[in-house]
Amino acid sequence: MKNLFARRAEKQNRSFTREILDMTKRSLAISFAGGLPDESLFPRDEIRQEFENIFQNHDNSLFQYSSAKGIEALREEIAKTYHKTTKDEILLTSGSQQGLDLVCKTFIDSGDVVVVESPSYLVALNIFKMFEADIVEVKLNKKGVDTKELERVFKQRRVKFFYTIPTFHNPTSWCWSDWTREEVSRLAKKYGVILIEDNPYEALRFEGEKPLGFDRLLPAQTVSLGTFSKTLVPDFRVGWIRGDKDMVERFQTMKENSDLQSSKIPQLLCAGLIKSGKYALHVELLKKEYRQKRDVMIESLREYFKDTIEFETPKGGMFIWVKFPHFVDTMELFEFAIREDVAFVPSKVFFSDERKSSFARLNFTNSTTFEIKEGIRRLKNGYEKYIDDR
Amino acid sequence: MKNLFARRAEKQNRSFTREILDMTKRSLAISFAGGLPDESLFPRDEIRQEFENIFQNHDNSLFQYSSAKGIEALREEIAKTYHKTTKDEILLTSGSQQGLDLVCKTFIDSGDVVVVESPSYLVALNIFKMFEADIVEVKLNKKGVDTKELERVFKQRRVKFFYTIPTFHNPTSWCWSDWTREEVSRLAKKYGVILIEDNPYEALRFEGEKPLGFDRLLPAQTVSLGTFSKTLVPDFRVGWIRGDKDMVERFQTMKENSDLQSSKIPQLLCAGLIKSGKYALHVELLKKEYRQKRDVMIESLREYFKDTIEFETPKGGMFIWVKFPHFVDTMELFEFAIREDVAFVPSKVFFSDERKSSFARLNFTNSTTFEIKEGIRRLKNGYEKYIDDR
Repeated sequence: MKNLFARRAEKQNRSFTREILDMTKRSLAISFAGGLPDESLFPRDEIRQEFENIFQNHDNSLFQYSSAKGIEALREEIAKTYHKTTKDEILLTSGSQQGLDLVCKTFIDSGDVVVVESPSYLVALNIFKMFEADIVEVKLNKKGVDTKELERVFKQRRVKFFYTIPTFHNPTSWCWSDWTREEVSRLAKKYGVILIEDNPYEALRFEGEKPLGFDRLLPAQTVSLGTFSKTLVPDFRVGWIRGDKDMVERFQTMKENSDLQSSKIPQLLCAGLIKSGKYALHVELLKKEYRQKRDVMIESLREYFKDTIEFETPKGGMFIWVKFPHFVDTMELFEFAIREDVAFVPSKVFFSDERKSSFARLNFTNSTTFEIKEGIRRLKNGYEKYIDDR
Repeated sequence: MKNLFARRAEKQNRSFTREILDMTKRSLAISFAGGLPDESLFPRDEIRQEFENIFQNHDNSLFQYSSAKGIEALREEIAKTYHKTTKDEILLTSGSQQGLDLVCKTFIDSGDVVVVESPSYLVALNIFKMFEADIVEVKLNKKGVDTKELERVFKQRRVKFFYTIPTFHNPTSWCWSDWTREEVSRLAKKYGVILIEDNPYEALRFEGEKPLGFDRLLPAQTVSLGTFSKTLVPDFRVGWIRGDKDMVERFQTMKENSDLQSSKIPQLLCAGLIKSGKYALHVELLKKEYRQKRDVMIESLREYFKDTIEFETPKGGMFIWVKFPHFVDTMELFEFAIREDVAFVPSKVFFSDERKSSFARLNFTNSTTFEIKEGIRRLKNGYEKYIDDR
């Protein structure tokens, strides 16, 4: 682990994100920066009813210490969503963020090589740095990671694991093709590399077929991280790790050392909503609403930016990954956008070396359709002022 | 961080504890092993009412992502319990166990010297080993740590921090004298050592004066860990860290990287129960009930063991630390006790080298007074068979 000075440096990066969040709370700004779900859609009444059920159906052992594994009923429900998986291959965590922490604690020794897609999830990069991993980036294309480059890395370096977000990736929202998944499974098997699949967005699939899962392709070597933060509510902090039984045992020990256990109450609540079918209905609602928001953002981007920018229509997830002309530094553009009261995340934070680049990640789930239209209008204003200023 | 093999070895130790817990669930056994509160005393109705209040008084932002710091209302209430402390010096954690994890992540680099009392809290020892600390034990006496030995260590080694449970210590339940606290503060200041004060039991003081706090003696160099697990319910996973503002900022970054944030709902619940005065009433009830259980265990120990064993009457906390005759290995005694369907924690797990020793930690909070009497009777039977078998 790095000592204080290294950590301070890395904090700069985090506080940039914190700053965006603070900024957007302070003013009438519109934020496309966070990865927040739409809170107006939270199933408040269903949650309240389920709390009531939990109180009625449990004695005081509900509030006592319990196993670090998490409650059986929810592990069983989650196991069902994977190929040939039992509850013993599931560990409940405090959000999928904790899954990532436990994975690092279990696998990373200082100097270990960790492969990531380029770009990749900001906070994952920060954590890998904190654990002193040697981060190697492999280019991500629209159909998935560049498998030739990946094989070169697997061949040349002793890789501890490959961290990937194959389905509705953060920040790009791209989804790996089945071919890429098969090829990566083959390579991982050949070179003995563990796959860490971070999968918070898969349930938010607006169109297209369910992609081929690593639980089917390479179950023994894949660790999958999941969460209810995007599909139910973030505050419950219910996530999970799926891995083979031995790995899950090790993660459990790390969990015990990290915080003993998570609260059973939100776990029971998730299990209850799944069993009653309310969870599935809610996810359908989210997909409908988010898809509509996505479409509004795409229309607005086309209306205001015409062919100045490039982007793919995401088939799921929460973000649109916009490519500005190559001369644009989105970190600079960000300053101009902020002055127009609109925020996004500049691409540089998604690269481990924080290099200058011309992409922007725009979240479409946490704004109303009115705010989306208005926010894109403001972004265009900011963009014009930025261009004029060059 | 250690790699897999080292971790496996260390798991043996954990699974011993897990085994005790499993064993006691399976049978009619009586367990004095865990550190569990009495669940029949959990303030169920007050909790239910408070949940109701929270739903009524909050909009959907209750369920949204929020700050890693934890809710302001609770940080304010906790700050009031310390000398000249503000809410910015408090970070809410997922139990005090997570506080320990964040402390390790923030301070320990591989090979760093960490001083602990001998004996010390089992799980803390495990975590320090996991972070590859060089653990140095300093003898604990009834009035506190041996300050001469402590100064020798502070002088000879570059100590990162001194981890201590000065008030109703785990496993001994001993409470440091004010003189020891003053002397240790002086030494910590002189040698620039941070104090990590783990303080889960202080609120459970049955008699005697409130001890002099490190928040008063050495506020800038002390990090205190607290929890509602022993005084309210463990499942809420609400704990906290008190430290100076800069340190708390660093802990917050570590918290963000570990699990983003904890759930606001149990935090609001704790704050609500404190504000309404119900929490204070509940703690009074616990003290009365636990004191009575302590007295029953002491009577039973005297009745069955006469002067075979030695122990102090704890003035607070959850344990009695019993010294068997010097030739007794409590790890062996444990096997005999288990056959009589009674469990305790043998002392060896509280020493970092797991050396053979003749103490036992008996918990008195999680059994009924009937079970306490019956359990001590069984322990005596087990003890006699152990002696006969030698």
